[in-house]
Amino acid sequence: MEKATRQHTKEHNRNLVLKTIFGHEQISRAETARITRLTRSTVSDIVSDLIDQGLIRETGVGQSQGGKSPILLSVVEDSRWLVGLDLAQNEFRAAVVNLRGKIRGVVAIPVDGIDRDGAAALKLVYKILDQLIGDTSQPRSGIGVGAPGLINTNEGMVVNAVNLNWKNLPLTHLLQERYGLPVHILNDCQAAAIGEKTYGKDFQKDENLVLINVHHGIGAGIIIDGVIYRGDGGFAGEIGHVVVVREGGELCRCGKRGCLETVASARALIKNARQSIGHHPESRLPSDPQQITLDTVEEAFKAGDPLARDLVLDTARYLGIVISNLVGVLNIQKIVLEGDMTRFGAPWLDAIRQSMMEYSLEWPLQNTRVEFGGLGENAVILGAAAVFANNYSHLIGH
Amino acid sequence: MEKATRQHTKEHNRNLVLKTIFGHEQISRAETARITRLTRSTVSDIVSDLIDQGLIRETGVGQSQGGKSPILLSVVEDSRWLVGLDLAQNEFRAAVVNLRGKIRGVVAIPVDGIDRDGAAALKLVYKILDQLIGDTSQPRSGIGVGAPGLINTNEGMVVNAVNLNWKNLPLTHLLQERYGLPVHILNDCQAAAIGEKTYGKDFQKDENLVLINVHHGIGAGIIIDGVIYRGDGGFAGEIGHVVVVREGGELCRCGKRGCLETVASARALIKNARQSIGHHPESRLPSDPQQITLDTVEEAFKAGDPLARDLVLDTARYLGIVISNLVGVLNIQKIVLEGDMTRFGAPWLDAIRQSMMEYSLEWPLQNTRVEFGGLGENAVILGAAAVFANNYSHLIGH
Repeated sequence: MEKATRQHTKEHNRNLVLKTIFGHEQISRAETARITRLTRSTVSDIVSDLIDQGLIRETGVGQSQGGKSPILLSVVEDSRWLVGLDLAQNEFRAAVVNLRGKIRGVVAIPVDGIDRDGAAALKLVYKILDQLIGDTSQPRSGIGVGAPGLINTNEGMVVNAVNLNWKNLPLTHLLQERYGLPVHILNDCQAAAIGEKTYGKDFQKDENLVLINVHHGIGAGIIIDGVIYRGDGGFAGEIGHVVVVREGGELCRCGKRGCLETVASARALIKNARQSIGHHPESRLPSDPQQITLDTVEEAFKAGDPLARDLVLDTARYLGIVISNLVGVLNIQKIVLEGDMTRFGAPWLDAIRQSMMEYSLEWPLQNTRVEFGGLGENAVILGAAAVFANNYSHLIGH
Repeated sequence: MEKATRQHTKEHNRNLVLKTIFGHEQISRAETARITRLTRSTVSDIVSDLIDQGLIRETGVGQSQGGKSPILLSVVEDSRWLVGLDLAQNEFRAAVVNLRGKIRGVVAIPVDGIDRDGAAALKLVYKILDQLIGDTSQPRSGIGVGAPGLINTNEGMVVNAVNLNWKNLPLTHLLQERYGLPVHILNDCQAAAIGEKTYGKDFQKDENLVLINVHHGIGAGIIIDGVIYRGDGGFAGEIGHVVVVREGGELCRCGKRGCLETVASARALIKNARQSIGHHPESRLPSDPQQITLDTVEEAFKAGDPLARDLVLDTARYLGIVISNLVGVLNIQKIVLEGDMTRFGAPWLDAIRQSMMEYSLEWPLQNTRVEFGGLGENAVILGAAAVFANNYSHLIGH
């Protein structure tokens, strides 16, 4: 018992030092001690070990603060490779990622054919990982998976992913068995938030941020005090199923009516465009509803088509309502938007901001910035992989 | 710089030990070291000092874990007294509170006469504190203030408290000057959440909880990982101004329309009852609208009056909607209700739960419990005072 505790503290301190060094281009031992609040001798011991393991190295000499010039430390970015997997898009995407979040290889496979066939979806996961892991000779330290739907991270379980037809799938266990690597699975929006926080250059200074992923689904990943906030059950950030149309709302795939996803997702936009086109023969949208896709809506939108414009900005208005509620509850001043709907650019973003102004208290909103994310389609992959980047035990392989 | 940092770490560790001992009826040095992850010798040094300062004492001998029986430590609960002040009710209430949250003296003054006269409200604050501080000879270690409205805790400023007509009032500075004591001001709902977390016996084990105060205003205090979550600007938990009636909503005191407060607060209930009574001569509510108060509504409600019942349960329905959104975002499984509307008891609570079921995803809700708080009208006072209870520098007076 006593010993287990000391072991636990040691691991905690080691990860703290690792994270601090990873968070800086270059940093001295003294500065690391200051930030981590560990003693200099503890930091020195840990640093020696990290150098022995090849994870960091001495890379230069910093400016003297009066005494001896300090030696600077940096991460050896390609000393370990991680695997990140994004199961939340139209294609499954996996990448090998180094310790600085640089992508060293990508494999993508479209998922169109496997609609709602859970077993086929799982086979596809194996296929993409077999291919990616076969491609590289560098040892890999772990597989991070960003998956859509309700994920129980502690138990490594996909509780419910409607699009993939997975219910209570023990994905962590399955992948661990097959690849003999540590596996960490988390909600795709939570992964994207970690990705932006860790590797999105602008956001590293923000201790709190909310990432909102607006695609066929809608969800949020919440970073509080620099770490992902999961909530008691791991389901935090489920804003896609906030009810925004209380009377006569459309049926949502969750079984309720009028959820945000039924009016503000890419799927809702396409559906609404298909339903509207019959009444608007003058629109630039394809007159055959089946030819209406996100691409053709985007084309019409950018050509100034009023119907496309109304439909797109309507989605933004609903998003603004829900984001304003979120800002009211959390008072987080950095809101980052990602996902396929961001293709509608500045007008969509402006409409979201406008709607927020209408439905929010003035004060909390004043310093709130709503922006597009910087990692685009790689956010989930990078975030899923980043989970391992600060974990000593996983990086050294035990 | 170097020294300031070491000082900072020392203070941090000292408060950590203090908090850990305060959180237990009795606890050994070894157990304190285990929980705080500090070394045994650091804990022993800090404990010696805390004993010298009279804050804790050795009170017994615990069970041996194989070796020597450990000596147990406890807080000396009346060694310091704190002042807690609640400005968010129909009366200003202040109390002297000991280190275990036991109330040692209360003063309350009704605020009816000072409606929207900011200077008069401030005078009343002085009057109540003069009286309370004059009443006790025991030295006091700080004044904690729970105030309604938007509070900037870092700057000690009441940014906007509509009912008291305070705008940008530097209340911390004013009270510090007058009483020569450290002062901490925070939003009343945040204070109540700290109160329930610290002294509400049932909630000490919950690392996350949301306290929702439903009175003339409505707000939430959010505890994450055991500490109050304030958000970037200190405004977290402002759920009273989530817009729930989007078309034709009533004007709110915040300037927007259809906010939760316009349909679910005690004020809204009274207003609606006064407007409805003309159309319902059969109701047990007083036929003179001016005689309709929260008390007369409660009386009619408890006598089974259908109008009173509909009006009350309607407030619960709206509350349920907003709480369900909050649960969706935060996935916090412990929701605690406080404030004057809790007088409507089990039927009101059941209607809230029912509405949540209707508007929430099933999964996050499954383990969510919605309950009444245990501290009642003292929650804000106790929470405001508790801010000082774990702060060594304040307790020893420098």
